[in-house]
Amino acid sequence: MITRNIFLNISPLDHRYFLSNKELFEELSNYLSEEASIKYCVKVEAALLKTHIIMNNHDDCEKLIKEAESLENTVDPAKVYEEEEKTQHNIRALVNVIKEHLSDSIKPYVHLGATSVDILDTATSLKIRDVTRNVLLRLLIEIEEILIKIADTEAGTPQVGRTHGQHAVPITFGFAISEYVSRLGKSIIKIKEASDDLRGKLAGAVGAYNSTSLIVKDPVKMEEETLSYLSLKPSEHSTQLIEPEYLLRLLLEINTAFGIIANLADDLRHLQRSEITEIREMFTETQVGSSTMPQKRNPWNSEHVKSLWKAFCPRVITFYMDQISEHQRDLSNSASSRFVADYIAGFAAALNRIRKVLSTLYVDKKKMKDNLVLTGDLVLAEAAYILLSCSGEADAHEKIRKITLECEKSGEKLSALLKKNKEVWEKVSNQLNKTTGLDASDFFDNPELYRGQSVNKAKSLAEKYQREMLVLKEKMNG
Amino acid sequence: MITRNIFLNISPLDHRYFLSNKELFEELSNYLSEEASIKYCVKVEAALLKTHIIMNNHDDCEKLIKEAESLENTVDPAKVYEEEEKTQHNIRALVNVIKEHLSDSIKPYVHLGATSVDILDTATSLKIRDVTRNVLLRLLIEIEEILIKIADTEAGTPQVGRTHGQHAVPITFGFAISEYVSRLGKSIIKIKEASDDLRGKLAGAVGAYNSTSLIVKDPVKMEEETLSYLSLKPSEHSTQLIEPEYLLRLLLEINTAFGIIANLADDLRHLQRSEITEIREMFTETQVGSSTMPQKRNPWNSEHVKSLWKAFCPRVITFYMDQISEHQRDLSNSASSRFVADYIAGFAAALNRIRKVLSTLYVDKKKMKDNLVLTGDLVLAEAAYILLSCSGEADAHEKIRKITLECEKSGEKLSALLKKNKEVWEKVSNQLNKTTGLDASDFFDNPELYRGQSVNKAKSLAEKYQREMLVLKEKMNG
Amino acid sequence: MITRNIFLNISPLDHRYFLSNKELFEELSNYLSEEASIKYCVKVEAALLKTHIIMNNHDDCEKLIKEAESLENTVDPAKVYEEEEKTQHNIRALVNVIKEHLSDSIKPYVHLGATSVDILDTATSLKIRDVTRNVLLRLLIEIEEILIKIADTEAGTPQVGRTHGQHAVPITFGFAISEYVSRLGKSIIKIKEASDDLRGKLAGAVGAYNSTSLIVKDPVKMEEETLSYLSLKPSEHSTQLIEPEYLLRLLLEINTAFGIIANLADDLRHLQRSEITEIREMFTETQVGSSTMPQKRNPWNSEHVKSLWKAFCPRVITFYMDQISEHQRDLSNSASSRFVADYIAGFAAALNRIRKVLSTLYVDKKKMKDNLVLTGDLVLAEAAYILLSCSGEADAHEKIRKITLECEKSGEKLSALLKKNKEVWEKVSNQLNKTTGLDASDFFDNPELYRGQSVNKAKSLAEKYQREMLVLKEKMNG
Amino acid sequence: MITRNIFLNISPLDHRYFLSNKELFEELSNYLSEEASIKYCVKVEAALLKTHIIMNNHDDCEKLIKEAESLENTVDPAKVYEEEEKTQHNIRALVNVIKEHLSDSIKPYVHLGATSVDILDTATSLKIRDVTRNVLLRLLIEIEEILIKIADTEAGTPQVGRTHGQHAVPITFGFAISEYVSRLGKSIIKIKEASDDLRGKLAGAVGAYNSTSLIVKDPVKMEEETLSYLSLKPSEHSTQLIEPEYLLRLLLEINTAFGIIANLADDLRHLQRSEITEIREMFTETQVGSSTMPQKRNPWNSEHVKSLWKAFCPRVITFYMDQISEHQRDLSNSASSRFVADYIAGFAAALNRIRKVLSTLYVDKKKMKDNLVLTGDLVLAEAAYILLSCSGEADAHEKIRKITLECEKSGEKLSALLKKNKEVWEKVSNQLNKTTGLDASDFFDNPELYRGQSVNKAKSLAEKYQREMLVLKEKMNG
Repeated sequence: MITRNIFLNISPLDHRYFLSNKELFEELSNYLSEEASIKYCVKVEAALLKTHIIMNNHDDCEKLIKEAESLENTVDPAKVYEEEEKTQHNIRALVNVIKEHLSDSIKPYVHLGATSVDILDTATSLKIRDVTRNVLLRLLIEIEEILIKIADTEAGTPQVGRTHGQHAVPITFGFAISEYVSRLGKSIIKIKEASDDLRGKLAGAVGAYNSTSLIVKDPVKMEEETLSYLSLKPSEHSTQLIEPEYLLRLLLEINTAFGIIANLADDLRHLQRSEITEIREMFTETQVGSSTMPQKRNPWNSEHVKSLWKAFCPRVITFYMDQISEHQRDLSNSASSRFVADYIAGFAAALNRIRKVLSTLYVDKKKMKDNLVLTGDLVLAEAAYILLSCSGEADAHEKIRKITLECEKSGEKLSALLKKNKEVWEKVSNQLNKTTGLDASDFFDNPELYRGQSVNKAKSLAEKYQREMLVLKEKMNG
Repeated sequence: MITRNIFLNISPLDHRYFLSNKELFEELSNYLSEEASIKYCVKVEAALLKTHIIMNNHDDCEKLIKEAESLENTVDPAKVYEEEEKTQHNIRALVNVIKEHLSDSIKPYVHLGATSVDILDTATSLKIRDVTRNVLLRLLIEIEEILIKIADTEAGTPQVGRTHGQHAVPITFGFAISEYVSRLGKSIIKIKEASDDLRGKLAGAVGAYNSTSLIVKDPVKMEEETLSYLSLKPSEHSTQLIEPEYLLRLLLEINTAFGIIANLADDLRHLQRSEITEIREMFTETQVGSSTMPQKRNPWNSEHVKSLWKAFCPRVITFYMDQISEHQRDLSNSASSRFVADYIAGFAAALNRIRKVLSTLYVDKKKMKDNLVLTGDLVLAEAAYILLSCSGEADAHEKIRKITLECEKSGEKLSALLKKNKEVWEKVSNQLNKTTGLDASDFFDNPELYRGQSVNKAKSLAEKYQREMLVLKEKMNG
Repeated sequence: MITRNIFLNISPLDHRYFLSNKELFEELSNYLSEEASIKYCVKVEAALLKTHIIMNNHDDCEKLIKEAESLENTVDPAKVYEEEEKTQHNIRALVNVIKEHLSDSIKPYVHLGATSVDILDTATSLKIRDVTRNVLLRLLIEIEEILIKIADTEAGTPQVGRTHGQHAVPITFGFAISEYVSRLGKSIIKIKEASDDLRGKLAGAVGAYNSTSLIVKDPVKMEEETLSYLSLKPSEHSTQLIEPEYLLRLLLEINTAFGIIANLADDLRHLQRSEITEIREMFTETQVGSSTMPQKRNPWNSEHVKSLWKAFCPRVITFYMDQISEHQRDLSNSASSRFVADYIAGFAAALNRIRKVLSTLYVDKKKMKDNLVLTGDLVLAEAAYILLSCSGEADAHEKIRKITLECEKSGEKLSALLKKNKEVWEKVSNQLNKTTGLDASDFFDNPELYRGQSVNKAKSLAEKYQREMLVLKEKMNG
Repeated sequence: MITRNIFLNISPLDHRYFLSNKELFEELSNYLSEEASIKYCVKVEAALLKTHIIMNNHDDCEKLIKEAESLENTVDPAKVYEEEEKTQHNIRALVNVIKEHLSDSIKPYVHLGATSVDILDTATSLKIRDVTRNVLLRLLIEIEEILIKIADTEAGTPQVGRTHGQHAVPITFGFAISEYVSRLGKSIIKIKEASDDLRGKLAGAVGAYNSTSLIVKDPVKMEEETLSYLSLKPSEHSTQLIEPEYLLRLLLEINTAFGIIANLADDLRHLQRSEITEIREMFTETQVGSSTMPQKRNPWNSEHVKSLWKAFCPRVITFYMDQISEHQRDLSNSASSRFVADYIAGFAAALNRIRKVLSTLYVDKKKMKDNLVLTGDLVLAEAAYILLSCSGEADAHEKIRKITLECEKSGEKLSALLKKNKEVWEKVSNQLNKTTGLDASDFFDNPELYRGQSVNKAKSLAEKYQREMLVLKEKMNG
């Protein structure tokens, strides 16, 4: 075991973000570390070995299978690295170390029929599938459930809808959050599907089963059996590599979820601006906001999530570049694909942080209400135009637009100016009453009444995705 | 109509690639040009108008519906642009122009209840769905069918498998091509699915149906009805925008297909190297390869495809950036999302070119065979190692490795050196005979026999995807 | 001439942005259109031809030189395209067309010694240099000068400094703008330098002057002479291509300027939020903000600039990819590098828009002042901590931090709570008076006094870059 | 000290690439690790403290300065992390820990006047400048010097020039390498310049020197003095951040050098193809090329370099994104900018590997010569065309093109067919003799004679950059 002061590590993932996400990152290490990589390779070699043992019908079959199965615990990664210094080839090194732990009779069968990439690519599929299921999806579902809860609880909390940073028309805070319930919910389901479709491979050096064709009559079946020990299906076609798109599509969907989270983080950042302050991230009593400005309470967690997105989102270009490998493969994806581990850890760190923000989010309902009427009843200009149009007025938009310009100049309320024009006011009132049963004066005095289907939408999406998450969790446990 | 010398255009898509793909690009214009954008917006406005007419149960309902339906042909894009100079708002301009073509009684209902983006985003979904179905998928299926044919025809054509640019073990050319049958085939199916899942929207300024709630009791139903005229389902949740992920996922999958095509192009380029020349792009008699080197026959079509990939692949970053829009939307996706048109045209140009290359591809079987034995029978080193291992030799890999070093030094054939070691040769021969029934001398004299499942794999994938393409085409016509 | 309805074009650059930037884009066409590409190639062929004529000391030298020089006006791009249909090679086609306009005696010398890329790469350097100088730099300098004017005029206009979207400490609006004076100013100078360093080439098929070595004794001198007609220096080394980094560095710096503009646009967007409204983009009387919300005044121009950045910034990846060309070149940069024209047009469109925004920007000084004191005198918490520390208090930051928490709870002003603690207040007052001569009560009543060097900095940067821009303009005219 | 098994780390930079570049990565840790980050922050805090001590003219000035200077050795990173758990603010934590090591009289002056970013951004500039000078530039110069040596040694080694992967015309291997001498040489010089232009900052929370204006009369001078201890100049303008472009430009130029290295790696990869084998990476006797194909000798080092480029090149998008920070800063660059450390380590790993490849590169001159005449004397087709043209033949290109088609069909040599046409052969011979003094038969029998200025160019570039590197090394030591 080679130990090292973690503060000597280079990647923030291995010092700062490890420390700030300790429990999470220790879990991630089970899948994404170099130790995990080697262990997963051992799992695959063991599966292949079991296939050989059973095919060969060895006398001491049971004992040998136990040997194969215990490899996972006996092989020491540091030893493999030592051996690699000699072979300059990581899988050949692993094979040599594995053999030391086995009875002579099965030593010749270690790795037999496989090319390195059969082991490596299969191990990658396995570990990415596992980390997705056991870590990412668990975190994602937690976040989704918190969002669902906020959408439900705040379904009726009035807030102004904003487009272009400008007050538009009223919504509710629950409705705003239900956007993320819907978008993230779908992405979670798709991440699950893509991770279920990761594949394994035992098709040899160029994917044509050359070597295994010399060992068995049906090498395609030999591949299926080996992979079945790992609950993986084979790649439909292989070169030296598994088809790259199985993993690519998972990573693209993860990056899609990352973008959704980043969008949410941006919304949360801006809602905490000094002039808006509709929500607040939790701040502990002893926490310092600035090293020099004692009054500061910064939305640093949301900013952190956005920043991680900036660090990781562009890496999809690498994923796309790694689709291209000359002929039956060049090796130019070898280093680049190792950084998928970093990418997933970066995403997990972002998930962990947004979960923290959401689970302690403070919603200032009073401030939301105050902001809603910041421009008086101007957020009802649309309503006025719609109601007027419904009464058959062809030029309603232009008429109301001019009145709003007047409002701005005079400082008067929109309803005040509308009422001055009796005919207009009557049309508006009648139409309003007809479709909604509301009284026009009441309506203009309470702009939050103009919220459309905000409540229903928030409630129904919350309900739908609560169900969906339940289904998902059952699938994952089942 | 504003006409212009096309050589004054700036984007290569509007001069050079338009001219070199004339028929294709004229078709693309029906979906991707500015005229098409406006026409598609008119389609959406017409659908909304029809909903109003029916809901309002107008007296002259039938006549009015005809007016709505004929808008598509009567509205002149140039007029809309003129009007926009006044309003500085493209949809308000469109609405004004539309009204000029309608009876007074329905003028007030034009656009009523909609926000601009209801129209724009729905129109985008429509046109992207249509261009994907009618152009991209048609081209993709054609390409897939040519690949299927090559895979099938060349299923038994011996070729050396290459990894790291080095000769590895034998395959067949049909097997090599079946890689792309499999990868592209799956991508085509997914592109179809994603294009079928594009959505429309009629949920108003911030997505909460504020405006339509003043018009009808059930605005969600009003949205469904309007969109049903366009064969679209509504976005599950909307802000001012349709959820961005429906379109994003389609574009990501298109970029995935683009990567597959680029990989194929790279393979084709390299197989045309002077030292390899296993295939050749068609070259006409009068064609010039170089302005100064008269003998040149460059793989310029494959290079072109790769180059287009370089130009367009990185644009996915823009697609991901456009996921993020503050609150109920900022406008920072407005210009950027217009370039989706360029992206799709670039992809179509690449498809058109690779189709051309593949449909006239010359395969030099003799050269393939010659290259296969370029290093004598060294491509059977793996076979020797496998066979030796199967006979229980634990150190087989190392033994054969050393023999190959000897081959390199002495220039002797691998089989010659193997035969010198009687014990080894016997083991190898026996094992070979056991699993394959082949004679060892024969085998080493004909390395192309060591091709594993190349033929079966090529054949079965060709067959499978022929079926899949048939199903797809039926769905698209049906 | 092939004309076409511009609404049938695909790229927004060739319809929408052409129309909204008509004068600018017509100018751009002189450098970036296909017609311009061909004209620039003709310029280079003419330069080469002149070298030949002079070297060969033709009898009718003067007449022939005139023929060469008039080619630019006589060659018709449409003709070249027709010819290309036959040759399938663009430069060979051009050469054929050029010959038609020349006397027989010099026909053999057209293009002689050159490879296509000698012409193409040199033409690209020329046209990119010209469009940078004549269009981009002119626009950039205009923008810089407007920024300088705002920085100068508003040097003393109080505004709150914001970090994390939170009020931090006071600055002035001129200081905020001087950030962009400084950043953009430096970038402009660097763009000028990089454009001056674009290179030409006449080194033949693989850059080793093979062909010209058969024509003249000193082919390196022949290259220099030819390029001197175009005021270009040769690439230090060439393969078939000019070293890609000359152009790459220019594009990277342009993208840097693009980022600065995008940052400015973001600041402008947010300062226009309904809750902030410290500035406003000009809105005409007839302009419509929303098709459904009549009261809307959106910061759509700033949003547009940000959006263009999102569309174009990621394209640097293509520029970097195009650094890589196998051996003496593969052709995989051919299509991709054509889109440099789009990139530059996109940047120019963004410049044009931000210029418009800045030149009509409305600054609401009253609102700036109001926002500055939105949190009372809490923006002076830092000042209190600094002053207290200076008096020797070791725990000043923590002390003031706790007081600010009290302010938040009680709603009292910071100065009020400070005054309650006599000792603290005395220390703070004394220290303030010592370094600034200000009275503490006055200071806390007028937070805008705590603006550090805002005024000086704004003024001095404005002055510096006014000088720099003058120097630049002189250089460009000289 | 928190130690950890390195195989539990997540980033390949902290296990695999650390181990395969041990000496290098241990050196990198001095600049890029978290320990280094903290140490560099201490350096900056110490510089500020010294300024305070001298300004305040403390009695025990000398003793206190020693305390300040020894902080670098006394502050323990682990302690800082412990403290941060309380403050949730890294710089406030650092300040608290620093104070513990100082006399009471100067405790209040620690960090006084600074905002966190003054320290962090200045520390970043320092460490990036140091790692660039001490590690990257040293490695880059070493590589450049190896390239210079190869260019010089192989200046006359004949090789075929390749365009589009096709044989074009002859060059020399030294000429091919001199491409990289020239491109990389320039990039090295620019990296040096950009690293020299990194800046520091002591301008407070929003860059306006608010806080320091309360401490001294001339805060701009106070900034200069503090930074002079660190040999840094101040940022021309600051917000909370140093202007982002100083660092950005360095990173962009590093990425430019990365692209050059990747291009070289690609060339090396392809020259090692089985069919080409003009060069070879060193392979040790015990090294294994494939776990299953014993004969394999893969160009895995060059592939590794290309792969690292794929992993890191796209990260420039993050660098560009980090240009944008709202108002006086948002925090959304905080996490993302930490990964600059990863980027630099990735680049250093690539440099280390390409150095290894180049320093043991095997050049197979015989194979180069053999490949050169693979297509007989067809690589002289251009020469024939040029010579014929020079003699006044207008249609020379087309004539020779047709003859090459005949060569392909008949298998005859170009010279053989040329000689059959007496008139043509005479023209060609005469012109050749005139400009080069060579005999035509000789020339066509020895295509390597058609190498233009390959030798001169290789030699002169080698010489030039040898000088340049000397100058650079003197500057760096001086």
